[in-house]
Amino acid sequence: MSDAAPLFSTQEYLWRVTRLQDHMKTEQLDGLLLTTPADIFYVTGFLTRFWESPARPWFILIPATGRPIAVIPSIGAALMGQSWLDDIRTWDAPDPTDDGVSLLVDAIAETIPMKGSLGVPMGLETHLRMPLADFARVGNAIKPRNIVDGTTTVQRVREIKSETQIAKIRATCEIADRVFARVPEFAASGKPLDQVFRDFQIALLQEGADWVSYVAGSAGQGGYGDVISPATAQPLAKGDVLMLDTGAVKDGYFCDFDRNYSVGPPSSAVQRAQDALFMATELALNTLRPGMTAADLYGIMTKALGAAGATVGGGRFGHGLGITLTEWPSFTAKDTTPLREGMVLTLEPGVEVSAGKFLVHEENIVLRANGPELLSTRAPQTLPELG
Amino acid sequence: MSDAAPLFSTQEYLWRVTRLQDHMKTEQLDGLLLTTPADIFYVTGFLTRFWESPARPWFILIPATGRPIAVIPSIGAALMGQSWLDDIRTWDAPDPTDDGVSLLVDAIAETIPMKGSLGVPMGLETHLRMPLADFARVGNAIKPRNIVDGTTTVQRVREIKSETQIAKIRATCEIADRVFARVPEFAASGKPLDQVFRDFQIALLQEGADWVSYVAGSAGQGGYGDVISPATAQPLAKGDVLMLDTGAVKDGYFCDFDRNYSVGPPSSAVQRAQDALFMATELALNTLRPGMTAADLYGIMTKALGAAGATVGGGRFGHGLGITLTEWPSFTAKDTTPLREGMVLTLEPGVEVSAGKFLVHEENIVLRANGPELLSTRAPQTLPELG
Repeated sequence: MSDAAPLFSTQEYLWRVTRLQDHMKTEQLDGLLLTTPADIFYVTGFLTRFWESPARPWFILIPATGRPIAVIPSIGAALMGQSWLDDIRTWDAPDPTDDGVSLLVDAIAETIPMKGSLGVPMGLETHLRMPLADFARVGNAIKPRNIVDGTTTVQRVREIKSETQIAKIRATCEIADRVFARVPEFAASGKPLDQVFRDFQIALLQEGADWVSYVAGSAGQGGYGDVISPATAQPLAKGDVLMLDTGAVKDGYFCDFDRNYSVGPPSSAVQRAQDALFMATELALNTLRPGMTAADLYGIMTKALGAAGATVGGGRFGHGLGITLTEWPSFTAKDTTPLREGMVLTLEPGVEVSAGKFLVHEENIVLRANGPELLSTRAPQTLPELG
Repeated sequence: MSDAAPLFSTQEYLWRVTRLQDHMKTEQLDGLLLTTPADIFYVTGFLTRFWESPARPWFILIPATGRPIAVIPSIGAALMGQSWLDDIRTWDAPDPTDDGVSLLVDAIAETIPMKGSLGVPMGLETHLRMPLADFARVGNAIKPRNIVDGTTTVQRVREIKSETQIAKIRATCEIADRVFARVPEFAASGKPLDQVFRDFQIALLQEGADWVSYVAGSAGQGGYGDVISPATAQPLAKGDVLMLDTGAVKDGYFCDFDRNYSVGPPSSAVQRAQDALFMATELALNTLRPGMTAADLYGIMTKALGAAGATVGGGRFGHGLGITLTEWPSFTAKDTTPLREGMVLTLEPGVEVSAGKFLVHEENIVLRANGPELLSTRAPQTLPELG
């Protein structure tokens, strides 16, 4: 039945695809093949939870000029038909004899010259969402055309957000902000952590999330040891630090930030760790500028934590954000990606409070010409207390 | 902090891996490389929503004999450390210079003889969850070892569920059953569909889902046109058929079934369509036996719909179910996969009520020696009415 208007104007999609095509020209790509939910959503606005089914591959082919071509399972024809695309080719998937391969090969053959190059994202943080054997079939069938790495084109374009995209991410952050303010309503000493996780998700839906693609968190005495495990039924207890983190989704755009709470008053070690994280984040907010690299920002935060006497936690200290929970770059010592105006990023420093006990602090920002603009409401320096 | 017990006994995981290794022997595989959330969960019990971040690859290598080896980002070490695995190798990911490639190559070199074959799922309904360029690097580095298709091994083993797995799927179905009974509490004429979707997800969490990975649905006068679009704010109206479908998750196991509701009394055309769907499903429930193929079952249902004078809807008429929303096989005319005892399946016939207006009916079953056992509570033949 859906009569949803496309989420963005055709002008916005044209802007996106023109930038991809400009990069393709620089990278000498005569076409670009996209297969993942995020890449396809980016260029078409095709938004559905149906990706949860791994049964069917979906293809978008971006030619050197002109609009993208969709080669998709027929079950998606109605929804893709609402997009700005005018060339939508479908087959009945899954088809064990030919699951879109011939259709895709035909589209590539029509679009890319015989000695041309087809870009496919194949670098860090990418994957190909189609069967490997079918990808090999496509590669053979389109010879002598080459398949080459299209990662740079996709990443350099997608990482700069338009104002309309920034507004979407801000709206999702505002949903999470409202929910983090409500956490004391449903989290307190004695409440099992798995029930807190359920109530947190319920509150995100109540406050306007379309769905909740990611919830993480942890609770432990004087800090937590692991932030990716599912919640257990263990009740919260006085002295616990509770951390909740979410990637809620509204109109296909994610937030990704966490908040920490102390069950009863925090220990002095916990508050010192929190102070160090707060100050490292303040420094990042005050000094980050376009032209720095991801590694520069990581250096700023680790140095600040060290100066505050804190033990720097492992892992990255933030990343890109947008139409997936995490996007490139990564704030690590090794990532030399330049930070540019229009990037939406998370600042996520972590410290080790004591052996195996951590605290992680996270904010969402957009990088402007003169520095970061917060998309999340700044966390308080003093840990909020739960009863 | 998590101190969750592994979801299943070591005996269960040994049963799974031994069956994989038996198939590997038949298929002449000296090792099997797994990269997807479901395949890794299947052999290790590693359950986390952290897969939502596409940043990092994760690897499980199954040798010809003995326990699997985990080669994973260090952020997963604590959680994987709770599994039955004893060989867990980690690196700080994402690493732009070497994102687990060297570690994985070493593990393969230790495990697989020089002229051996490494299986990787590359067939229908699979994909490789790691960067393609890194996969090529691994392939080159492990030469002269071969990389070959491991799809059959994974699919023939995973599709037969143990009783403990069946109990998990049944528990998730029971959550959805309770929520479908509550739909009249939150869906009625005048209620915007997007709010119905939110309340449906809230109810699933309230009834015990850990998270809600999939919600779909639609509403339309005398049937619906599209079942994969996000909900719009359009209010339900008298004469609409509302369909809600969910893949809720509990302990990592999915349900996947829908229910239809009529807003006010259904038209005779809608009730006739519903009758045809109900009877086709009854026939499948009464006649399906191990030894039939997926195509046989599709034939039974399409024939029953035709005999009832209904117009057969497009798309498949059901599929496997378990640790992803949809698993192989597919009930289509082309899928000749044998149906075997212990398979968990959805029966999902669809009809076209009038031009572009559909009705889809779905149940979840486990196939026993003497036929299907329902895991979902059988839908009523008469469409429930909403106010």
